[in-house]
Amino acid sequence: MKIVKAEDFDLRREVEYGSPEQNEAVREIVAQVKQQGDAALLKYTEQFDRVHLTAGQLRVTEEELAAAYRQVEPSFVEAIAAAAANIRAFHSRQKRNSWMDLQPDGSLLGQIIRPLKRVGVYVPGGKAAYPSSVLMNVIPAQVAGVPEIVMVTPPSTGGTEGIDPYILVAAAEAGVSEIYRVGGAQAIAALAYGTESMAPVDKICGPGNIYVALAKREVYGGVDIDSIAGPSEIAVLADDSADPAYVAADLLSQAEHDEMASAILVTPSPAFAEACRAEVQRQLGELPRRGIAEASVRDYGAIILVDSVVEGIDVINRLAPEHFELIVEEPMAYLGLIENAGAIFLGPYSSEPVGDYFAGPNHIIPTNGTARFSSPVDVDDFIKKSSLIYYSKEALLSNGATIMELARREGLEGHARAIEIRLRKEGKAGEAE
Amino acid sequence: MKIVKAEDFDLRREVEYGSPEQNEAVREIVAQVKQQGDAALLKYTEQFDRVHLTAGQLRVTEEELAAAYRQVEPSFVEAIAAAAANIRAFHSRQKRNSWMDLQPDGSLLGQIIRPLKRVGVYVPGGKAAYPSSVLMNVIPAQVAGVPEIVMVTPPSTGGTEGIDPYILVAAAEAGVSEIYRVGGAQAIAALAYGTESMAPVDKICGPGNIYVALAKREVYGGVDIDSIAGPSEIAVLADDSADPAYVAADLLSQAEHDEMASAILVTPSPAFAEACRAEVQRQLGELPRRGIAEASVRDYGAIILVDSVVEGIDVINRLAPEHFELIVEEPMAYLGLIENAGAIFLGPYSSEPVGDYFAGPNHIIPTNGTARFSSPVDVDDFIKKSSLIYYSKEALLSNGATIMELARREGLEGHARAIEIRLRKEGKAGEAE
Repeated sequence: MKIVKAEDFDLRREVEYGSPEQNEAVREIVAQVKQQGDAALLKYTEQFDRVHLTAGQLRVTEEELAAAYRQVEPSFVEAIAAAAANIRAFHSRQKRNSWMDLQPDGSLLGQIIRPLKRVGVYVPGGKAAYPSSVLMNVIPAQVAGVPEIVMVTPPSTGGTEGIDPYILVAAAEAGVSEIYRVGGAQAIAALAYGTESMAPVDKICGPGNIYVALAKREVYGGVDIDSIAGPSEIAVLADDSADPAYVAADLLSQAEHDEMASAILVTPSPAFAEACRAEVQRQLGELPRRGIAEASVRDYGAIILVDSVVEGIDVINRLAPEHFELIVEEPMAYLGLIENAGAIFLGPYSSEPVGDYFAGPNHIIPTNGTARFSSPVDVDDFIKKSSLIYYSKEALLSNGATIMELARREGLEGHARAIEIRLRKEGKAGEAE
Repeated sequence: MKIVKAEDFDLRREVEYGSPEQNEAVREIVAQVKQQGDAALLKYTEQFDRVHLTAGQLRVTEEELAAAYRQVEPSFVEAIAAAAANIRAFHSRQKRNSWMDLQPDGSLLGQIIRPLKRVGVYVPGGKAAYPSSVLMNVIPAQVAGVPEIVMVTPPSTGGTEGIDPYILVAAAEAGVSEIYRVGGAQAIAALAYGTESMAPVDKICGPGNIYVALAKREVYGGVDIDSIAGPSEIAVLADDSADPAYVAADLLSQAEHDEMASAILVTPSPAFAEACRAEVQRQLGELPRRGIAEASVRDYGAIILVDSVVEGIDVINRLAPEHFELIVEEPMAYLGLIENAGAIFLGPYSSEPVGDYFAGPNHIIPTNGTARFSSPVDVDDFIKKSSLIYYSKEALLSNGATIMELARREGLEGHARAIEIRLRKEGKAGEAE
């Protein structure tokens, strides 16, 4: 790991949006599914996943779900249920009520908060199928009150009728109401426009490969989408009170995700920087995903030396990392200074995997510096708000003239007249002039 | 106005994203400002606005603001201050606190809510410069606690040094901290990347012409943007208890905005439909912006006949209109049925301009059916959230094995080891196996 100064390091990277050919292919798939429905879904599933299905086989049945439970270890069911309970508890704290403000003139103003009606969650197939991501996408929607949560995932050989039984169990524990074995851009198009077998949704979320990401961008507008995540990142700010072995392990747990993942240590201690560098080397040698982690550490890793913990926090605020571990003496004392970080892990026992899997906060967190203005996935991502205005006659009569003045100042005479006609008819026109 | 059945009507329209030439022009402007800073800003201001400025003249001074107050009528200052107070009061109800959940094992979990640090608000020049929109964009940011709110608006001949004094007064009343006389794509680029005279912002909002919209899309990613609004819409659901003259005036107040604006009446009463159609014709004849309103009513207006108020609500839910007026007997009785509407106006005195200018809720509301999944601008648009995880040693020791099981199930051994190394060192490795 290279040791550098803060000003020489920029975490931000250009986001990849696919080649013109990939974009063209995705547009074609989306258009075909929009036009031909199930027939196109089945055709592409045969073409890309090499699985032949009939329309009647798209939806996963109750029996298949029950079979999945028999295929996984009981300890896994317990673990996923415990994680789901923690995630549900944390997200339940985010629920908000509709509210009304009652005015003395009899008017009511308010904000009505409702869940989205139907949400689609994409789950990748193969090695990128993470049960934990199912929980993190589905549970916030469920806590928000979304009545219909649909999961789509590509069929593949092996597992329960082609779907990983661990994914099916996670979906059931999280509260998914419908599961379809379809993936890729065709699944995104089906969620957006609906087919004979699948009703369209209001929002699509969940990670996927480049085709899935491009398809989400293609359908956006008529349907909402979540943001498209960049490579994962961790920044650790640690002083001599930290254990270099713990810090190195946490850096590597991020680096093993992806060659483009980024693991950064910020420290005021040159001795700690050296100790941590040595630990990273030592632990790397024993890691199964060593190749990935080594590339990540080499290309996107760094140890940044600073003068003090406070200067370190300043570096963190400029990086705005997805995950931030603060392992110093009295970490709480610095909390007020942390402006930009998606998730903040304090103290030696808050290793990032605690948050990735179990503690309760969401593990879908803004990447690539966007924590400056965006937030981890939460219940707010699955609600919509409507303003409520019930104006009383008294309120209109006493404020009508002011409203008319503002409308006329903007040259919108029709707006003024919608007020004026009421003031006149209610016999108060005189007051409005 | 044509009278049609619900199933024959679709409010949704294709959104215009500019020609390839416009896109190319915007990319060039953005790149130049990013590279050359103030020099490019001044060059484009001379080229597009025909105003020659030096860098020192970009920022509007305190003296100019004071002069603007002397140029406008005192009644306008009072009206805008009254509207600002209402908008501030309504949005203050939306403020949220950071929270922490204290666990019995000593862990702390929470969500930290912070304002964005710096926000840019675009205000168009000329006839599209609406003081009310300044309030609606700036006040939610201010209530959220954003410390730096920057306004940009193109200079033009006339007014205070080229800026409409009504806009300057609205900006001052709303709480803008800096104002720059620069517009178009070049202003958006300056907000996104900063120049010698302007520091970059975290989020850009406010309406603008196609060049402004394209520039916002171009810079999005490194900086957040608001959503790009489509043409404005109103849907009124009224029965025989409503006054056709009121309803017609409200429909026209929307239609006068734009030839592409949409004004729709939904009613169970054929007699009311006829009466309202006649009133629209009559009032149209007297409207200054008659040409615009006539085109809007002809091309995007409709009267939709339904069997009952409840069926009418169903039509509204499918339209998901930006503005929805419900003028029937006992409107509150139907509130629970309204699923999709950006702003809901209840009863005969809640004419849409009440909300456009004065009552307090925001007038920037989702258009084109997107109220199905998005919401009016509010304080939430100007905050960011960070998750907080402080895990105690006890919590890690009792949950570590479960976390490791979930990590290993996903093939992420490095994640498991970050936990395991702690369990071992704390002398509890035995429990984790």
